[in-house]
Amino acid sequence: LNSGTFIQTRRMLNSLPRTEVAHMIESSPPKTRAVLWQLINSDIEGEILPHLSDEVQSQILSQMDTNEVVAAIEGLEPDDLADILQQLPNQVIREVLDSMDHQDRQRIEQVMSYPEDTAGGLMNTDVITVRPTITLDVVARYLRRHDELPEMTDNLYVVSRRDEFIGLLPLRKLLVSDPSITVREVMNTDVTPIHADVDDSEVAQLFERHDLISAPVVNTEGQLLGRITIDDVLDVIREDADHSLMSMAGLGEDEDTFSPFSKAAPRRAIWLGINLLTAFAASAVINLFQGTIDKVVALAVLMPIVASMGGVAGTQTLTVVIRGMAMGHIGSNNSGWLINRELLVGFANGLCWALVVAVVAMLWFNDTTIGAIIAAAMLINLVTAALAGAVLPLLLKKMNIDPALAGSVALTTVTDVVGFLSFLGLATLAYA
Amino acid sequence: LNSGTFIQTRRMLNSLPRTEVAHMIESSPPKTRAVLWQLINSDIEGEILPHLSDEVQSQILSQMDTNEVVAAIEGLEPDDLADILQQLPNQVIREVLDSMDHQDRQRIEQVMSYPEDTAGGLMNTDVITVRPTITLDVVARYLRRHDELPEMTDNLYVVSRRDEFIGLLPLRKLLVSDPSITVREVMNTDVTPIHADVDDSEVAQLFERHDLISAPVVNTEGQLLGRITIDDVLDVIREDADHSLMSMAGLGEDEDTFSPFSKAAPRRAIWLGINLLTAFAASAVINLFQGTIDKVVALAVLMPIVASMGGVAGTQTLTVVIRGMAMGHIGSNNSGWLINRELLVGFANGLCWALVVAVVAMLWFNDTTIGAIIAAAMLINLVTAALAGAVLPLLLKKMNIDPALAGSVALTTVTDVVGFLSFLGLATLAYA
Repeated sequence: LNSGTFIQTRRMLNSLPRTEVAHMIESSPPKTRAVLWQLINSDIEGEILPHLSDEVQSQILSQMDTNEVVAAIEGLEPDDLADILQQLPNQVIREVLDSMDHQDRQRIEQVMSYPEDTAGGLMNTDVITVRPTITLDVVARYLRRHDELPEMTDNLYVVSRRDEFIGLLPLRKLLVSDPSITVREVMNTDVTPIHADVDDSEVAQLFERHDLISAPVVNTEGQLLGRITIDDVLDVIREDADHSLMSMAGLGEDEDTFSPFSKAAPRRAIWLGINLLTAFAASAVINLFQGTIDKVVALAVLMPIVASMGGVAGTQTLTVVIRGMAMGHIGSNNSGWLINRELLVGFANGLCWALVVAVVAMLWFNDTTIGAIIAAAMLINLVTAALAGAVLPLLLKKMNIDPALAGSVALTTVTDVVGFLSFLGLATLAYA
Repeated sequence: LNSGTFIQTRRMLNSLPRTEVAHMIESSPPKTRAVLWQLINSDIEGEILPHLSDEVQSQILSQMDTNEVVAAIEGLEPDDLADILQQLPNQVIREVLDSMDHQDRQRIEQVMSYPEDTAGGLMNTDVITVRPTITLDVVARYLRRHDELPEMTDNLYVVSRRDEFIGLLPLRKLLVSDPSITVREVMNTDVTPIHADVDDSEVAQLFERHDLISAPVVNTEGQLLGRITIDDVLDVIREDADHSLMSMAGLGEDEDTFSPFSKAAPRRAIWLGINLLTAFAASAVINLFQGTIDKVVALAVLMPIVASMGGVAGTQTLTVVIRGMAMGHIGSNNSGWLINRELLVGFANGLCWALVVAVVAMLWFNDTTIGAIIAAAMLINLVTAALAGAVLPLLLKKMNIDPALAGSVALTTVTDVVGFLSFLGLATLAYA
């Protein structure tokens, strides 16, 4: 980079929307990231950080010294600040908190007292509250004393003298109503505020089902603590949706696409190791039938077909069930129907492809017995795959194990073992 | 159901938020769905339909006669109405359009002139427009003439005399500004309106990157056609996120968890058939080495390990790359780095687990040669898997084939074939 381009790049980077810059950083390998971060003016670093994923955030924070961190995160919103602070050493957290005024520190400490993945951890404290007894005209004058209303303000919050949440005053109602009537007469009271302890996935479902832009958060006494806005909920929705996809491959939902080799390799190694164990289990099953394979080598040629078709069919069922569970569709009242349908689908498709495989195997090896054996094994394995794919995630969830993470390993173990066992077992009986 | 419970259920159902009812319908097997739909008052059917997935929508619509459909969808917003109309026979569409007044029909026809998955198909026409020259006081009086502002109204749209989009007037600015100044003085002009032809995934990315609640849609002449709101974008984000998960198992992103057997079975059968072809390809490779397996049966016992580990490692790489592509992280400038890292990870983990497998195989079969062979094959297959997992999706995308759908089949074909070929090929050389 000659210095002309350098200055141009710097200017361009600092004039882009913060979220664009964050996206650019996320889309870069580690070294480019470090260079980009150097080019960013220190006064806007804090506005970019909240838009990065946790992993990239901590990568960048680890390369900054305490003073830089303190300067960068000054003036962030409480929820973003709390997220970032949780990634820093205790020493730095204390320094940051000490540098703040009393009121700000109290706000941060309140947000940080709730886990990151709860409503309390998601909330912001930038709410505008009004009393139910005042007139809309007074509200309008009160608002005009602000330089600007907080972003994503669609409602004002109506609270009692003791800060208890009473209702919402939507701006779009405020603007069309007669200024002389009171807040109480126009406010919405059919709103259930979200308790601070509620899980963030549940918050996301509430936002989706009720088309919310913001929602009030309260403590057990019903006092208004803050509000959650849709921009923060979007991240939760993205992460929840990615969770199933990534976990089924043994990856983290927040996995950095460009994480360095030193981080990516060990994580993947563990997953491969677990799968190696299940592969050995399958080998142990084959080992039982060495004698039969020695007699009929064609068995070795065909046996992967049965196992592989079971794995594919089982993965389909597993994916449907895991996604259904993630969307909150599956409960004790309908899981029976679902298992039944999957068994039926498994049986029908097992039968269909068993016939095809049987014909091909017979013609290929000019042996009717081997056709009959592979057909029977295929049917057995596809029905087993359907059962395992539907029941395993439900069982795992009951045992509080993440079905998306453990489900696919457990499933392929079942379909491999049953596939080889049924095919080679039947062959041993037939060719004995 | 005795009639007391029946009436209670009906009352409960009709008083729930529409989105809750939709969720209940989505979470039910087909028969329960039909019963629930019967219990819903016909005047709220139209409010529930837009919250159902396309598949469930068409299932329910197919059971209603034309008059019922016309009555149900009366008064829906243009984007929702257009979505539903597109699922109906032409005859019904014409009847519905005929039953509307001129202005409504024009609006619907405009939305329907754009494909469902574009900005034009997502937009609504319920915008409130103002001229730049009037004062905020006039705006306030104009708003007060409305009974209610449309939901999700966070901005008013500033347009020229010829309806060209000029800028936004955020409500949160309107409320804090001096009533005597003009719209031009407070409006936001650094907003790029979305062109009606833009792809819906791109719209979703814009909303996510700029934290939008609503955004203006314009035609090629820059005239304001309508606006897109975050609630409709949420559905796009959900579907895009589900797309990778579902496609990798050969399922549709919009797959109904409780689709009846008659629909689920044929769809899955096709995917199984494609996979059967790849399984036969793997068998054909094994078939080449019948002689070697006949000599050393232990090969048959160990060969699935090499193929399976390749499949798992490749799927990890594939998943990372497909997700990275879906998030817009991967481009021509960084794909080289990514392929390199994956190759390195594949090589390192291949080496690591090759050693473990070699030791186990040697001890198990008391044969040093077989240990060396499986180690070499494992390393070859894990490096191949990394390469295939990283390059295949990029290649498929260039060929305009959906990488999430075709990637996993293509990948396992590669890892199975290379796995068996390298293991049995090396064994043939060693035991010749």
